[in-house]
Amino acid sequence: MPGGTDQTLRPFLWRAANLYSDTEIVSRNHDGMQRYTYSEYEQRTSQLANALDEHGIEEGDRVGTFCWNHSRHFETYFGVPSIGAQLHTINPLLPDAHIQYIVDNADDQLIFVDHSLAPKLASAVADADDEFEGVDFVVMGSEESEHLEATPYESFIEGQETEYDWPDIDEEQPAGMCYTSGTTGNPKGVEYTQQMLWSHTMATLTPQGIPMADDDVVMPVVPMFHVNAWGMPFTATAGGSKHVYPGPSPEPEDIANLIENEGVTISAGVPTVWLGLMEYCSEHDVDLSTLETVIVGGSAAPKSMIEWFDDQGVEVLHAWGMTEMSPIGSVSHLKSDLRDADYETQLEKRGKQGLMVPGLEFKVIDENGEEIAWDGEEFGELWIRGPWVTKEYFKRPEANEADFEDGWLKTGDVVTVDEDGYIQIVDREKDVIKSGGEWISSVELENAVMAHDDVSEAAVVGVPHERWQERPVAFVVPGEGVERETLVSEITEMLKDDYPKWWLPDEIEFIEEVPKTATGKFSKKDIREEYADQSLVEGQVPEDAAPDQD
Amino acid sequence: MPGGTDQTLRPFLWRAANLYSDTEIVSRNHDGMQRYTYSEYEQRTSQLANALDEHGIEEGDRVGTFCWNHSRHFETYFGVPSIGAQLHTINPLLPDAHIQYIVDNADDQLIFVDHSLAPKLASAVADADDEFEGVDFVVMGSEESEHLEATPYESFIEGQETEYDWPDIDEEQPAGMCYTSGTTGNPKGVEYTQQMLWSHTMATLTPQGIPMADDDVVMPVVPMFHVNAWGMPFTATAGGSKHVYPGPSPEPEDIANLIENEGVTISAGVPTVWLGLMEYCSEHDVDLSTLETVIVGGSAAPKSMIEWFDDQGVEVLHAWGMTEMSPIGSVSHLKSDLRDADYETQLEKRGKQGLMVPGLEFKVIDENGEEIAWDGEEFGELWIRGPWVTKEYFKRPEANEADFEDGWLKTGDVVTVDEDGYIQIVDREKDVIKSGGEWISSVELENAVMAHDDVSEAAVVGVPHERWQERPVAFVVPGEGVERETLVSEITEMLKDDYPKWWLPDEIEFIEEVPKTATGKFSKKDIREEYADQSLVEGQVPEDAAPDQD
Repeated sequence: MPGGTDQTLRPFLWRAANLYSDTEIVSRNHDGMQRYTYSEYEQRTSQLANALDEHGIEEGDRVGTFCWNHSRHFETYFGVPSIGAQLHTINPLLPDAHIQYIVDNADDQLIFVDHSLAPKLASAVADADDEFEGVDFVVMGSEESEHLEATPYESFIEGQETEYDWPDIDEEQPAGMCYTSGTTGNPKGVEYTQQMLWSHTMATLTPQGIPMADDDVVMPVVPMFHVNAWGMPFTATAGGSKHVYPGPSPEPEDIANLIENEGVTISAGVPTVWLGLMEYCSEHDVDLSTLETVIVGGSAAPKSMIEWFDDQGVEVLHAWGMTEMSPIGSVSHLKSDLRDADYETQLEKRGKQGLMVPGLEFKVIDENGEEIAWDGEEFGELWIRGPWVTKEYFKRPEANEADFEDGWLKTGDVVTVDEDGYIQIVDREKDVIKSGGEWISSVELENAVMAHDDVSEAAVVGVPHERWQERPVAFVVPGEGVERETLVSEITEMLKDDYPKWWLPDEIEFIEEVPKTATGKFSKKDIREEYADQSLVEGQVPEDAAPDQD
Repeated sequence: MPGGTDQTLRPFLWRAANLYSDTEIVSRNHDGMQRYTYSEYEQRTSQLANALDEHGIEEGDRVGTFCWNHSRHFETYFGVPSIGAQLHTINPLLPDAHIQYIVDNADDQLIFVDHSLAPKLASAVADADDEFEGVDFVVMGSEESEHLEATPYESFIEGQETEYDWPDIDEEQPAGMCYTSGTTGNPKGVEYTQQMLWSHTMATLTPQGIPMADDDVVMPVVPMFHVNAWGMPFTATAGGSKHVYPGPSPEPEDIANLIENEGVTISAGVPTVWLGLMEYCSEHDVDLSTLETVIVGGSAAPKSMIEWFDDQGVEVLHAWGMTEMSPIGSVSHLKSDLRDADYETQLEKRGKQGLMVPGLEFKVIDENGEEIAWDGEEFGELWIRGPWVTKEYFKRPEANEADFEDGWLKTGDVVTVDEDGYIQIVDREKDVIKSGGEWISSVELENAVMAHDDVSEAAVVGVPHERWQERPVAFVVPGEGVERETLVSEITEMLKDDYPKWWLPDEIEFIEEVPKTATGKFSKKDIREEYADQSLVEGQVPEDAAPDQD
């Protein structure tokens, strides 16, 4: 075979440690600020790899993390996959039942957990049947946890050799894993092979993606449990950039301070994060002069946000992706021939989900199975294929059938494509609500609501929200003669038992009938359209409903 | 398997044709300037693919090209590999015997040949035994050739459908092929799989490589028969850039005109090309204002060249690579922490072969088999591995043994690495001479010289040359009582029969003995060192010795 060596993460670590040995990794950790170089990063990562070996972790084993964005979490990003094991980043904001299912489904052997998240994990463990049987815990820091029996991370790696002979790994070997919200039923696992992560890293490093170089200071605010923080820790390493991690539950003040103190040039997060920063900046004197690019994903960036950052000399780049695709698909770079267009036209283009990065192909299929015209008006479901797009869910053959066809991923996003090739999401076929960058399953919520004896029918939809982009609202058809206030408070109590606070509907509306489609399904589209003009505004959601503050 | 779709060239063509349908491909062709859009490019490439099908070319078949840089040649770049066949770009500057060997060894089914190169190919065909048996020819243009029986390209594709349903191709499928100079014996074939070309394209598209975007106008002057013009036609397509091809035997005036008229932003070529342009600019008023980057490879760029381009506001980027690695390995970007260094330090760094691009790993092994220190002083042989580095030669198991070990390519280049990670080539273990970007085998030449009855020993070495970087000089130990002038003219006549003019030694020096190493081999190093100060200067080589003008 003439083909070269397998595509793995190893050369990215090698390059950073050797060509940029003095470049820094800076992190707000649970135990204060941590600051070290790529050279020390490689040494600590080697220690972690040796410790994993000693713990008995073998090629193909899954290792979980239950962590915020910080330097120790980043050590697992290369340490786990580069010994041939698989890094499974668990979303700590999920309902306990999902966490239990996920850990069991993935068969995690070991879980790294943050001090601040240990209570949450402990509660899922306490509730569990046998999902956590045989799982060991390491808590991220020097101290033990009072909530979980766990080895402190620093003890775990202490005394290990600071060198590791990183093996040759097959590019088909799964290296990462992340679960995506199921529209019905349990979350679905997506495995990232070494090749998928390699491909995604290279593609996002290009000028058409989110280019990073050795003069960049990269701060991923998007959580590292969300598809590897959109791959940024890998991309920044490949590019030799300085890393900045904002640590546990970062507040707008923390974000602002890190940008100022560390000279951040590129950051990324959901709109909620940037709305928080904008608010903070309106009340405080913040120096954003080093900041060049803000990547916004997860939900659409409002035009006003793009304009505000333009005024600060910061380019907002809209990015779109999915858990199934490692995750970046498109980035809304302004095409060079639009540079002379008027500002409104530019804003309109930049507000779309963008242009597909090199290496991917897509098509948009309408309800008759035909490809749509690229006129910005016709719409259909977006289908995608490429080297970093998965071809199946983990152990979920029935879900595969619905979401994959002929090598294409059927994204469930309904889009238009304009003459310039910009994609815009106009609707979502998959029935999920996106609140502050986190997914809420509307189907799961409405099943829970309908479990109440006095509910004859219920639909839950996402309603636009200024701060959280979307919030769930339940539309309930009550049984005969039911008392409204009693039912609302009973439903709320019931949901509280099983779901985190931020999943609870902001409103429970009574209606006479749930509108249906021709085939008798709930027509969420009709309900959403009715509510489209009634944006929920700041203040209607309690502050602690925020997923990032749970 | 969770892994995504195979890595092939198809998505690059798809992206350019769909997102940049109006962007131009401009070319100086044998029949005048050609100018069309990516959209028309895709249509013509589809016609070519249909024509290849009709001609009976099948998956895995090899299709040769014997062409300069122009738009029709570019059509073969996607048209041939994207039907699953393999594009074999033949170097028309080689001796006939090499061309015969290469076509036979590769088993080419069909060869696309330029009008201006048809006489050269016809001469190799006329001389051949059965190497060209069953090979068909297509001549690049609308007219027939008077030298070869060949279908004109425009007739070949005429009437074919302008759409093609590009198939899914395995990423391990060989897509390209190029022969490299053998130090002894015949040239060695290197196959490029779809995955290697995909990887190389993505890696060179990064800021650490040679980034290209939709505001770039890319002109590869480096021949398309030299490792796919360093991959630029693929990279420019992936980036959505405008292409400019300088056509047959471009003169400095042609290069200058294309830069001015087409607004070229990035170009690439060997130092000889840029020396020619510099000379031309000193005598003519040339507007280089659009030009941003000049990639120099093949041989080291003199400092004076970097300085001259700096004065024009053009960045010279030194790149290093090999036929065995698709070809780019390192690019001499200035590290961000060197931006404050004094100009001399910067020039010194930029004059080196540069920093390895993301995705590759290297080590440098000294004569004791140990890795050298990165101090800019210790030296050893450069070993490289990565996804676009081949792991074997085509049908040459004996060459594999010498050049590959444990998944590493042993480059034969002797290098130092400095504290910043910049590689610098200090010597060449492989016994080849590089003249104007083309390889000359010194061993082959000296064997030819020693075939003369009156020569008892001879060594041929490359001596530094101002314009051609290196030129061959023969050191001959004559037999007893031989008359010098007679022998020199006899040797010259003898060589002329078998080699192109530009292979002939510039000088034939008589010596008493060829210096030997401890093991009795010719010590070229000793001879080269003796001649290091005696740079050959312009004028000693006849103009027509230039490979580009053969």
